[in-house]
Amino acid sequence: MQFVASEHPHRRLNPLTGQWVLVCPHRTQRPWSGQQEKPEKNELPEFDPTNPLCPGVTRPNGIETPAYKSTYVFENDFPALVEVVPIPPNSDDPLFQIAPARGNCRVMCFHPKSNLTLPTMSAADIVVVIDEWISQFNELSAKYAWVQIFENKGAAMGCSNPHPHCQIWSCSFLPSEPQLKQERLRTYYTTNERPMLADYVDRELQRQERIVIENPDWLVVVPFWATWPFETMLISRNNNKRINDLTLEQRQNLAVTIKELTTKYDNLFQCSFPYSMGWHGAPTGPEHAHASSAHWTLHAIYYPPLLRSATVRKFMVGFELLAMSQRDLTPEQAALRLREVDGKCHYTEK
Amino acid sequence: MQFVASEHPHRRLNPLTGQWVLVCPHRTQRPWSGQQEKPEKNELPEFDPTNPLCPGVTRPNGIETPAYKSTYVFENDFPALVEVVPIPPNSDDPLFQIAPARGNCRVMCFHPKSNLTLPTMSAADIVVVIDEWISQFNELSAKYAWVQIFENKGAAMGCSNPHPHCQIWSCSFLPSEPQLKQERLRTYYTTNERPMLADYVDRELQRQERIVIENPDWLVVVPFWATWPFETMLISRNNNKRINDLTLEQRQNLAVTIKELTTKYDNLFQCSFPYSMGWHGAPTGPEHAHASSAHWTLHAIYYPPLLRSATVRKFMVGFELLAMSQRDLTPEQAALRLREVDGKCHYTEK
Ligand SMILES: O=P(O)(O)O[C@H]1O[C@H](CO)[C@@H](O)[C@H](O)[C@H]1O
Ligand SMILES: O=P(O)(O)O[C@H]1O[C@H](CO)[C@@H](O)[C@H](O)[C@H]1O
Repeated sequence: MQFVASEHPHRRLNPLTGQWVLVCPHRTQRPWSGQQEKPEKNELPEFDPTNPLCPGVTRPNGIETPAYKSTYVFENDFPALVEVVPIPPNSDDPLFQIAPARGNCRVMCFHPKSNLTLPTMSAADIVVVIDEWISQFNELSAKYAWVQIFENKGAAMGCSNPHPHCQIWSCSFLPSEPQLKQERLRTYYTTNERPMLADYVDRELQRQERIVIENPDWLVVVPFWATWPFETMLISRNNNKRINDLTLEQRQNLAVTIKELTTKYDNLFQCSFPYSMGWHGAPTGPEHAHASSAHWTLHAIYYPPLLRSATVRKFMVGFELLAMSQRDLTPEQAALRLREVDGKCHYTEK
Repeated sequence: MQFVASEHPHRRLNPLTGQWVLVCPHRTQRPWSGQQEKPEKNELPEFDPTNPLCPGVTRPNGIETPAYKSTYVFENDFPALVEVVPIPPNSDDPLFQIAPARGNCRVMCFHPKSNLTLPTMSAADIVVVIDEWISQFNELSAKYAWVQIFENKGAAMGCSNPHPHCQIWSCSFLPSEPQLKQERLRTYYTTNERPMLADYVDRELQRQERIVIENPDWLVVVPFWATWPFETMLISRNNNKRINDLTLEQRQNLAVTIKELTTKYDNLFQCSFPYSMGWHGAPTGPEHAHASSAHWTLHAIYYPPLLRSATVRKFMVGFELLAMSQRDLTPEQAALRLREVDGKCHYTEK
């Protein structure tokens, strides 16, 4: 029998982390009597006087959210990381290692209207979001080793407020995922004298099997090693290292690309598609200011949980937590569906 | 200001994986208007003629589940892994690495009655479950490098059928998590001439800060590096390497320990507490039969998602997926609550 990737279980390596993922084609056909998600709809009011993220509403801590007109950034009232915190004592016991963690956590509203999301905002409004990401990044990256910009969209991804927003958590240290990437990208660069993701973009363009969106500045693919069913990577084609490297044209093109990708997501199962997404680029802060970033390529990652429909998600549970990542359709199958679904015209809510 | 772990954000190292977790005390106090879980109740009928896991019911593939009286094991009708599968071609491109994956997937019912769970089963019935785990492990470990016994309990943990059951996925290879543990346990053993988890048990017994249950054969702790809010490890105190090492007395004691731990979980938020759990021990199969397992200690891990109540879970999303694990209360706070909650008498459903 000959091996066919779309038929036969196999493993694939994520070269960014060194971890393998188990790919099991056809498992989406099994019966499902487990949890049903509530399909996310865009049916909020434009303004909700009880929602602290809406312009003019008073937050639980008594501070009033101003009557903002575009984006609005404020410090999280319940931050995971704070700027001033005592340093834990050193421990020489390898089983009880503790380390300092300083930082801050900001919330960034995308738009004054609660009933918009990135796919339903205009490309011009998305450029404003990108510009705000960059201005935040400029400020925070001067001080912190890692500035994680991320969006949790939808209740299924733990979003605790439906107003369109993202978060920015800055860290005085390099967290595990970027640390791992940093090492593996550097090793690849040393061996190949090219950034890993620049090579990867070239080869995906040659192979044409996993591409979702392609334009002169950006490539969106379902990575060869994707773990979430419809996971994508949005990769810079211009050797950008960090989000604040982008030219005006690249930012405008990025806005169009984000709008198209998230429209495709929404159209796939005709719902406001939940996901977590975030930006990865070269580390920052005084510690990394003089280090080479030649091995890095700016990219965003989208982790959407839905598997089969607006109501059935993929659970990363037992086997996935205890043994390894596992997916139920091939990245090529996912890419084909995302490529074919409309990316221009958003479905209309019934 | 002096550092106080229960007050100040900090990081802790998981020595089994080398990954850090961000510990943020007091974050559970933030307002939550996100997803509400349906509290899991033990209110199923004893027998459901439409549930293929019930004795005497015909499965979708036409095979009848026998009228079993204790445990019952069958091959998963939609297996992620299969025994006979062609080998993928070798690739020398580091960005497109693919590897073979053979194995099998079994489902194991714990009991004929649908309305029981481990905490509501008798200790004697749990011994029967443990014995079946061992007999499955004996058979499968002869052939496969890794036999992952795991239970996904509750819809919140992706369980697709409410009948009490677990799964056993066997792999021709060592999956990522056990592979990482294998390396780190071995390194520790080489340096310290003691299994890491044996040292860890000793130190937790001295410190008495994270212990949930303690008896001569087993220790249950919220690990110093726990990521899920009420995560626990159930560790052998007898230098057992694999589940099929256990003596009759150790198995009886294990049944009592499992019943006590899962009763505590159910009582914590007065619901049928969801979790994923599974066993980790020394690798198996022809490949590992002659290798030393001196660095291993048999243990089970419980990953329960609930954070604040029967309806509010912890989401491992944006920051957690993109940057690093993060928790909202300290392991010591979680251990204290689990230690204090009743482990003998199960709450009664209202
Ligand atoms: O096999 P089940 O119960 O249908 O499925 C469940 O457990 C599997 C193994 O952890 C996961 O891959 C699935 O996402 C989950 O829903
Ligand atoms: O900060 P939020 O939106 O309240 O919370 C959400 O995002 C955080 C960062 O990924 C997670 O730690 C929380 O589990 C999630 O519910």
